[in-house]
Amino acid sequence: MTHSTNDMQACIDACLACYRTCLSTAMHHCLEAGGPHTEPAHLRLMAACAEICRASAHIMLTGSDAHRHSCAACAEICAACSRDCERVGGMDACVAACRDCERLCREMGAGR
Amino acid sequence: MTHSTNDMQACIDACLACYRTCLSTAMHHCLEAGGPHTEPAHLRLMAACAEICRASAHIMLTGSDAHRHSCAACAEICAACSRDCERVGGMDACVAACRDCERLCREMGAGR
Amino acid sequence: MTHSTNDMQACIDACLACYRTCLSTAMHHCLEAGGPHTEPAHLRLMAACAEICRASAHIMLTGSDAHRHSCAACAEICAACSRDCERVGGMDACVAACRDCERLCREMGAGR
Amino acid sequence: MTHSTNDMQACIDACLACYRTCLSTAMHHCLEAGGPHTEPAHLRLMAACAEICRASAHIMLTGSDAHRHSCAACAEICAACSRDCERVGGMDACVAACRDCERLCREMGAGR
Repeated sequence: MTHSTNDMQACIDACLACYRTCLSTAMHHCLEAGGPHTEPAHLRLMAACAEICRASAHIMLTGSDAHRHSCAACAEICAACSRDCERVGGMDACVAACRDCERLCREMGAGR
Repeated sequence: MTHSTNDMQACIDACLACYRTCLSTAMHHCLEAGGPHTEPAHLRLMAACAEICRASAHIMLTGSDAHRHSCAACAEICAACSRDCERVGGMDACVAACRDCERLCREMGAGR
Repeated sequence: MTHSTNDMQACIDACLACYRTCLSTAMHHCLEAGGPHTEPAHLRLMAACAEICRASAHIMLTGSDAHRHSCAACAEICAACSRDCERVGGMDACVAACRDCERLCREMGAGR
Repeated sequence: MTHSTNDMQACIDACLACYRTCLSTAMHHCLEAGGPHTEPAHLRLMAACAEICRASAHIMLTGSDAHRHSCAACAEICAACSRDCERVGGMDACVAACRDCERLCREMGAGR
């Protein structure tokens, strides 16, 4: 299955938006709020999500077909991160960014 | 399934070694040799492989369980890259680094 | 000297835009055009510029004061990349993105 | 001034070692210890240091002369991070990795 250039640009946009939101939220909101926001498992997942979103955007930008594997991984990690951000609470921007990114990456991913 | 700390350190080592080899080979050997070494599809895959190896190591370093998804993607992209490096020829160090990384990432990945 | 949140968001935007433009142009336009576009020194500088822009954005997103050092380095590398893209020719989008990023990073950088 | 290949490989090694140590220590030791280890300014600097070390290694691997700017930035950020890790205490591995990386990056950096 091939994807239009527009689909891919939208997916790159969503990945970079999710990367920015996860990294910035972890480093500002979470570190300042403390409590469940600084639980190791939560911050580790936020960091992992920021990284796979960043890598997924990068691999799409290279133009390599390999992006279907990184997009599939990105969709899974974004799904886990949105669930964990919902559990912790007060992280609506992260939940929304992760869900957008998950949806567009799933369409680009290996499962299609 | 859980993995020992030793297994994970070995996988991080293999990912960073493959990242270094792919990036350095693309930027030195491939750009200097030209011909099939600078075919767009080949260099794009080399760049994609370097990036997923780097990201896979990073996500393992965070300590998040999410690494099983990035390791699975890394194994697939390394497999594709080692095949393409064999096809182009004269890239034995890349082939070896990709195969090592593929093997260790597959053990860490989602399929286990 | 401190910078407003708006200044920093604009600089992050410029860094990520320059990262996308440099990486995508190197991997598509340059590899397809060949000739001077695939000279090792040119492609290496494009890759270096994409990386420092990406890192500079990342460090600003962390909220650390350390960004003034990475922004200063980013301004220098963007300046070198815009000059080299002008020399090679036919890379107007890269030249423009590098100049924007250079200007905003210089304002954020250590020299201020 | 030019540097030997051996000097550059040693600097890449030190950058990647410092990246691994800073990221892993932040995500494991610091998040688990809490207290001063999770002060926002400390964790942000750890994250910034990990990123510039990673980028500095990457830019050296590309072979571009631009590395002297990223190495100079890396030396400054490593110096700040080693001081902050000493202040917080109990982070000897980070202090040592930052100092090694600072020293080698300063030799590679723009000031030479």
